Amino acid sequence: MSSARGRFIAFEGGEGAGKSTQARLLAEALRARGIDVVVTREPGGTPGAEAIRSLLLAPPGAEGWMPQAEALLFAAARADHLAHLIRPALARGTWVVCDRFVDSSRAYQGGAGGLGDDAILALHEFGSEGMRPDAVILLEGSEEALAARLAARGNDADAIEGRPAEYHRAVAAAFRALAEGDPQGFARIDAVGTPEDVHTRIMFAIAGLLP
Amino acid sequence: MSSARGRFIAFEGGEGAGKSTQARLLAEALRARGIDVVVTREPGGTPGAEAIRSLLLAPPGAEGWMPQAEALLFAAARADHLAHLIRPALARGTWVVCDRFVDSSRAYQGGAGGLGDDAILALHEFGSEGMRPDAVILLEGSEEALAARLAARGNDADAIEGRPAEYHRAVAAAFRALAEGDPQGFARIDAVGTPEDVHTRIMFAIAGLLP
Repeated sequence: MSSARGRFIAFEGGEGAGKSTQARLLAEALRARGIDVVVTREPGGTPGAEAIRSLLLAPPGAEGWMPQAEALLFAAARADHLAHLIRPALARGTWVVCDRFVDSSRAYQGGAGGLGDDAILALHEFGSEGMRPDAVILLEGSEEALAARLAARGNDADAIEGRPAEYHRAVAAAFRALAEGDPQGFARIDAVGTPEDVHTRIMFAIAGLLP
Repeated sequence: MSSARGRFIAFEGGEGAGKSTQARLLAEALRARGIDVVVTREPGGTPGAEAIRSLLLAPPGAEGWMPQAEALLFAAARADHLAHLIRPALARGTWVVCDRFVDSSRAYQGGAGGLGDDAILALHEFGSEGMRPDAVILLEGSEEALAARLAARGNDADAIEGRPAEYHRAVAAAFRALAEGDPQGFARIDAVGTPEDVHTRIMFAIAGLLP
């Protein structure tokens, strides 16, 4: 275990971009270099945040969550995740690889959901002191390529995956706009290709963080 | 059913103040005057908000919710409650009598929890457009009187009721400060006495709202 603070790497992108596969491959590569790593996800990662995740992906009410309630729930889950898992891990020198973080809230609820970026950032400031990852890896691919990958999974869509194609197009556009507005803050990675190909691109992109 | 918009009356105060009893008595008195009334509570009142209530009163994680996560969850529950129960009821002419509303978040999380009033009001603006009740009835009593009433109930304390006495003293002080800062916005009612005595005081206080 290192005494230096761990690094925090978030994967972002739409459904079917391969975030969870790439998070796993990255963690394996980091562990092979002797780094302690925890792989986690949002919404979720702690008992409290996983309970909120269940409410988000299967809303108890027939009408579902309104966009504001959804954004507040994501912010609550993130605050819990940071306080009880991410910050303690980083403090003891463990690296954190997270499948989604605040930029998903910005793209989904802020962009596609129409709440605006300022509102999402204000919630993140309130709940989580505006914490940013050390690196954000944005996995991007054509709509067709990601839709084909998602269809191949064949599982039932949850309340967010199941939204219309135009919503998911707006999500992809919002991610693109975030990355274009902050070129230093996002590593934009072509998500099309074999998992090994994509992993190689990611290792190249984060080389500067490695000890 | 009246075609005029319904009125929205919130009961506020600490644990043991008699809010739910008085909400019921007020609803009965309004119905006796031919008014449609729905009695509801916060957190809760809708399937989504009741699910959030369960998480708030019995936190899934061993460490409980941090104050920010708690405030975000209350704001999410309130947004759902307003969107799916309170606003539709008022729009069809039904009166809404609610056991707790945003001033509880201001007193508990903002005041006693130390997050500050501005932060709670900002969350309420975001989630619920800052909506205020037509009347807020603040039930106040001495610490001893309320503690005795709470003890007489004999039920197990939830995660918020079970906080130390100094927290509940801070809640009472925060309610008092809110009422002193907005004398028009709060009807301060002495909660000590028989339920019928307290009810009579409340009917006097809201007489101006009656048709």
